[in-house]
Amino acid sequence: MILELADFRIQAGQNTAFEEAITRAAQTILSKAKGFQGYKINRCLENPERYLLQVFWDTLEDHTVGFRQSEAFTQWRAVIGPFFNGAPVVEHFDLVAKSA
Amino acid sequence: MILELADFRIQAGQNTAFEEAITRAAQTILSKAKGFQGYKINRCLENPERYLLQVFWDTLEDHTVGFRQSEAFTQWRAVIGPFFNGAPVVEHFDLVAKSA
Repeated sequence: MILELADFRIQAGQNTAFEEAITRAAQTILSKAKGFQGYKINRCLENPERYLLQVFWDTLEDHTVGFRQSEAFTQWRAVIGPFFNGAPVVEHFDLVAKSA
Repeated sequence: MILELADFRIQAGQNTAFEEAITRAAQTILSKAKGFQGYKINRCLENPERYLLQVFWDTLEDHTVGFRQSEAFTQWRAVIGPFFNGAPVVEHFDLVAKSA
């Protein structure tokens, strides 16, 4: 399993609308992608215009090729892109350890 | 519940030793702190000297006051601090939404 971590900054005053939009898009678009296992959306306490999206994928390519090159990605970015304040930062991670 | 996200850069060539040290310290020190719920340690694919530690706490103060001001924090940093390449970046997050 691979963790995708997307770090978003959004425009001020848009928190409620952004949270509704990204949650709906995660449920209706992202969750139908091949290799999708789950997601979490977190809001930063120190900077309330910063959000982290974690997406769990079967493989790296399920995200970088399968999803990114699909029509679903265009739909996904059409929903969340208008809220962005700057380009998102997206990286991928392996799990090293976790609590039982 | 609050998510603490700690972003670490370590010195080159220390991956195995760091992973063993932080996993052991998470199990033996961090997991005994008041308000601790769980942890995950992830390694970045794009930059293998970068790690993310996620710690789930009952409240923000369980981390920022209870743990940070305890003798256990001194022990924790004594174990993982020698691996650092630069100061860690630590922020806190609320959960907005997640998959079922």
